[in-house]
Amino acid sequence: LQRAQAIVDRALAEPISVPIPRDAAGGTHERHKLNYVQMQAAGFLYQVKGDIRYAHFVRDMLLQYAALYPTLGLHPKAKSQAPGKLFHQMLNETVWLVNTSQAYDCVYDTLTPADRTRIEDNVLRPMARFFTVDEAHEFDRIHNHGTWADTAVGLTGYVLGDPQLVKMALDGTRLDGSSGYLRQLDELFSPDGYYVEGPYYARYALEPFFLFAEAIANNQPELAIFARRDHLLNRAVFALLQQTSPSGAFIPFNDALKEKDIRSDDAVLAVDEAYAHDGHDPRLLSIARRQGKVTLGIAGLEVARALATTPNPPPFPFRSVEYRDGPDGNRGGIAILRGGPARDPSVALLKYTSFGMEHGHYDKLGFIYYDQDREIIPDYGSARFLNVDQKDGGRYLIENTTFAKQTIAHNTVTVDERSDYGGSYKAAENQHSEREFFDAHDPDFQVTSAVDRTAYPGVLMQRTLAMVRDPHLLYPVVLDVFRLTSAQPHRYDLPYYYEGTFLDTNVPLTHHPTERPILGRAEGYQHLWVAAEGKPAAPVSFTWMNGDRYYSLISATSPSLQVKFVQVGAHDPNFDLRNENAILLRSEGAGAHVFASVIEPHGDWNGVSEQTFGNHPTITAVEVLAATDEGTAVRITGKDGLAWTLLVASPATAKAASHHLATAAGTYSWSGFATLQQR
Amino acid sequence: LQRAQAIVDRALAEPISVPIPRDAAGGTHERHKLNYVQMQAAGFLYQVKGDIRYAHFVRDMLLQYAALYPTLGLHPKAKSQAPGKLFHQMLNETVWLVNTSQAYDCVYDTLTPADRTRIEDNVLRPMARFFTVDEAHEFDRIHNHGTWADTAVGLTGYVLGDPQLVKMALDGTRLDGSSGYLRQLDELFSPDGYYVEGPYYARYALEPFFLFAEAIANNQPELAIFARRDHLLNRAVFALLQQTSPSGAFIPFNDALKEKDIRSDDAVLAVDEAYAHDGHDPRLLSIARRQGKVTLGIAGLEVARALATTPNPPPFPFRSVEYRDGPDGNRGGIAILRGGPARDPSVALLKYTSFGMEHGHYDKLGFIYYDQDREIIPDYGSARFLNVDQKDGGRYLIENTTFAKQTIAHNTVTVDERSDYGGSYKAAENQHSEREFFDAHDPDFQVTSAVDRTAYPGVLMQRTLAMVRDPHLLYPVVLDVFRLTSAQPHRYDLPYYYEGTFLDTNVPLTHHPTERPILGRAEGYQHLWVAAEGKPAAPVSFTWMNGDRYYSLISATSPSLQVKFVQVGAHDPNFDLRNENAILLRSEGAGAHVFASVIEPHGDWNGVSEQTFGNHPTITAVEVLAATDEGTAVRITGKDGLAWTLLVASPATAKAASHHLATAAGTYSWSGFATLQQR
Repeated sequence: LQRAQAIVDRALAEPISVPIPRDAAGGTHERHKLNYVQMQAAGFLYQVKGDIRYAHFVRDMLLQYAALYPTLGLHPKAKSQAPGKLFHQMLNETVWLVNTSQAYDCVYDTLTPADRTRIEDNVLRPMARFFTVDEAHEFDRIHNHGTWADTAVGLTGYVLGDPQLVKMALDGTRLDGSSGYLRQLDELFSPDGYYVEGPYYARYALEPFFLFAEAIANNQPELAIFARRDHLLNRAVFALLQQTSPSGAFIPFNDALKEKDIRSDDAVLAVDEAYAHDGHDPRLLSIARRQGKVTLGIAGLEVARALATTPNPPPFPFRSVEYRDGPDGNRGGIAILRGGPARDPSVALLKYTSFGMEHGHYDKLGFIYYDQDREIIPDYGSARFLNVDQKDGGRYLIENTTFAKQTIAHNTVTVDERSDYGGSYKAAENQHSEREFFDAHDPDFQVTSAVDRTAYPGVLMQRTLAMVRDPHLLYPVVLDVFRLTSAQPHRYDLPYYYEGTFLDTNVPLTHHPTERPILGRAEGYQHLWVAAEGKPAAPVSFTWMNGDRYYSLISATSPSLQVKFVQVGAHDPNFDLRNENAILLRSEGAGAHVFASVIEPHGDWNGVSEQTFGNHPTITAVEVLAATDEGTAVRITGKDGLAWTLLVASPATAKAASHHLATAAGTYSWSGFATLQQR
Repeated sequence: LQRAQAIVDRALAEPISVPIPRDAAGGTHERHKLNYVQMQAAGFLYQVKGDIRYAHFVRDMLLQYAALYPTLGLHPKAKSQAPGKLFHQMLNETVWLVNTSQAYDCVYDTLTPADRTRIEDNVLRPMARFFTVDEAHEFDRIHNHGTWADTAVGLTGYVLGDPQLVKMALDGTRLDGSSGYLRQLDELFSPDGYYVEGPYYARYALEPFFLFAEAIANNQPELAIFARRDHLLNRAVFALLQQTSPSGAFIPFNDALKEKDIRSDDAVLAVDEAYAHDGHDPRLLSIARRQGKVTLGIAGLEVARALATTPNPPPFPFRSVEYRDGPDGNRGGIAILRGGPARDPSVALLKYTSFGMEHGHYDKLGFIYYDQDREIIPDYGSARFLNVDQKDGGRYLIENTTFAKQTIAHNTVTVDERSDYGGSYKAAENQHSEREFFDAHDPDFQVTSAVDRTAYPGVLMQRTLAMVRDPHLLYPVVLDVFRLTSAQPHRYDLPYYYEGTFLDTNVPLTHHPTERPILGRAEGYQHLWVAAEGKPAAPVSFTWMNGDRYYSLISATSPSLQVKFVQVGAHDPNFDLRNENAILLRSEGAGAHVFASVIEPHGDWNGVSEQTFGNHPTITAVEVLAATDEGTAVRITGKDGLAWTLLVASPATAKAASHHLATAAGTYSWSGFATLQQR
């Protein structure tokens, strides 16, 4: 309410401006965005406070749009396949209509019939027609852009009392349910509530999903929209929130901006709507408190009142969790392991989803790791500076394609210097990895495993992550076993991008202090400087520091293993890329290869009090004892007698009740998919 | 008290360990540091709580030291000119004795005469003798190491009832006042309270200064130590606090670690002691509240009680300020300009001090700039990872010498690719720049100017900074006019290290996307990659973003001007350096050259709400109209009719009442040192 009041106060103090659209990220673009924000706020505020000036503001601005809109052709900066008129892309225009149709609804009763006719005939109906006729392809897409368009037209249909528009919004322009809002609700989410594009776009898509759902519930309660698909929208909110970092940022896989967090307006709306319309789960209130605001409307009011009476709601149940992907839940998924104290958890993510539409990355079996509420082994996210005119108008940058989407930009294996699926969206879009195993019931040994057979024909990839607690160790460690098998010889590159400061490594390095080679020619390799490289003579140990803690990567060696320290930034004439650093493990040959590593947080460093301890890792060696179609055995040894053996089944034997694996160190037997022998 | 209790509880729960010293940053080093912390805490806690176990802990540990210390020669890792026995350097050992003598004093009454004799004869007296005889040179140094040594021996002298030790501590080993604590108090601080090494080491030096002062006040009140030099210690605390960034970090010029802030124990002690022993200034309580803790002792108790009765003390008076350097205040100094709102101030620093002893940098007329509580144009600080074993045992790294101290690592001019004074400490240590002007009474035009004639023989350097507010602008801007004159031709390089993301520049750039040249061969140049370079055809404009705001550097051009975008990181085989970025302005020729620039913060960018404005600067051009021995005229123009002329006197005419300067744009007249004609 306060924010709406501030927006409207400012709006009323200035002359209305409805400029002819010129730019894609500059003054006129921002003005039209501001206008719909102002109209929506003024409309809602009129409903709350009854001040007729607010209604007149909406009216006056809409009348200016009624004068402008019929004069517009396509936007002069339009480049996309779905251009707009007020904005360079139709997407922004649908957002405009989603907001404006709400404002119109709020002030409808104050308008003269003549004003209604001018507004409806010159803006609202022409825009709805533009979306449903000229841009029917976009309107009918099973995609968040389609959801925005459907919601815009649906809300407009309700306010105009036009059931035909509502029907098109719900069931698509063909009116047969082959597209439209309901189809999107069924196809864009998995049964678990996982949204196909990942959390960054989920938060964006959930805004129209909830806005339309609220209107449907008001106008067509017989559709029981919030109960649809076993309360899908509610579960989508829980899934969204589970996919956040400790500080509340959406885990930035696929195209994602790292600044986005749960405080964004769309996430606030989703939490409030889920609370108010489906079950009043008090655990959502703890998120609302962190968000620090509520949406202006009935749902937000309910949340605000609930927080007033329940100032200390139960915490949101952040936990280790897996989410299936795909409408039927059979298109891979993600696993998130959480460990350590609630205020400072370790979070490890394994990604084995489908491609995730146009904003997906070539990152099959990717890995992301947080600790201390910081990114430690991060995903690059997208190369984009949203709304920044100087950076290609705020669009996705060319480096998003040449680097950020490529496999080598991710903490996963690139085969033969080619990205997954040869970097072909056409080849990738209908493929997915497979869930193999997930078990988080034992907090001392949480484990997940996934397989991919699609990214590289002829190469079977299996990645197993475990989060392990042990009395030898202050913090949970992550075990990462990446097994590749192929009849043909290949080059396998596995980078770990690390945030923080290089401390040391036991790998004898050749440095390139004056002239840095570039790692390769294409598919992201052209953006990587090689700062130093070497051949390990023993299990690799690499230590860096970040924040108040030390981190070590300890990796098994192999006869072909090379280690390279690389930095992002070559071929970057516009300084678009962040100069992230990685340790890259390279192995070559045919048959089976296993990258087996431990990521160990250790010790503490305090620069204010000048105290430190534990700056060397406890884990001293990782060794692959055997890797066959029966399974993989990895030995992990450390100080003070730490000796573990991780035993993991192979895809071929994953379902077997028990396993027997012969190694040079003897035969190991275990039951179930994976076990850790600890002493 | 809580913290001391936690330390002592842990200490009592474990066996006492007094190991044979082996390492300089590892287990035995940290153990002996922990031991003195534990003894000091246990001693104080015994005084507070009277629990005899605490006294026995101190006794038992001291008896183990009494057994160990006589067996020790110099530390095996000793490298410095003043080695220790328990520690690799004597400095740590003096800190040990400062703490331990306090602990011994606290439990003295509980000890048997036999125990006292063992402890005094085997540790305390031998260590005091080691400091005053074997290491008399270090003990008598006018330097913070000397202060620690004097305080250690002084406190020990008081507790042993040995006036000879106290006398040596106060007046030096020669007992004539030519060295010792009192001499240090007179010589290490300027009359304003500025400490010769800068704020990072000031905070460290103030700990022994205050600890000894409190003991002197208790034992020899006739010395009126807190009133000495017109309450020097109190003013030193105010000067220390003025030299902090908005977030409380000590401004990191000279050798400094950026993590250090006002929460460090030494700063807490200094604030508490200054409050309790000299005037009870309530504005210090606001700092104590930010520190979140008090020192355990009478002073801390007074602060805690005062905060209990005054929970909302008046704010500390952060303001624009200049500090003179040198015992008599005539060895240059620093100027700090502050502007903008108190919660989010802009802070600009101009440095024209003396060299600052061994930890000084070759940074004459250096510049540092904060905004939004962030480093925007930072000082590199030192190349050191304190206490990090892997980084050369936590010592200053080689890159501290080869880069961080060098002139090119700072936001100031390097002449002919050589550091100030040819990089010679011997040549630099007794030189200083000169204050020319400081006037901060007008919040719309605060200005300071300084001159250096010593760093480069034959080159006169004058730098003038102004912080300007104007109705055209949302935030204060910084004007930076750096004038160089020389009869001989020279190459002048002025880098601005910028924190944040490059957005764009109007300079046509040649990029080095695949093979980066290195800027030079030595004196820091060998560490700089050249990413891109070009010759400006018009006044330079460069925009970057940081946090929620945009920043632009707009600089006058000249016929010889070249622009290079450089990055720190070449010749860095141990990954010791941070990969900081800079825009470097290069000019060549004889006569006078002026680098004239504006640093403009502008607009706002919000990644959560996806809103932005003002991503292009208001200032569009900077032009040098004239630069003579009479003065310098700089024209600044911008959007919406912004037109300023900055007029600054030259050193030769600085004292003149009025100035008349002929330029191609007409003759300008002004009175006083500098003026800004704004319209």
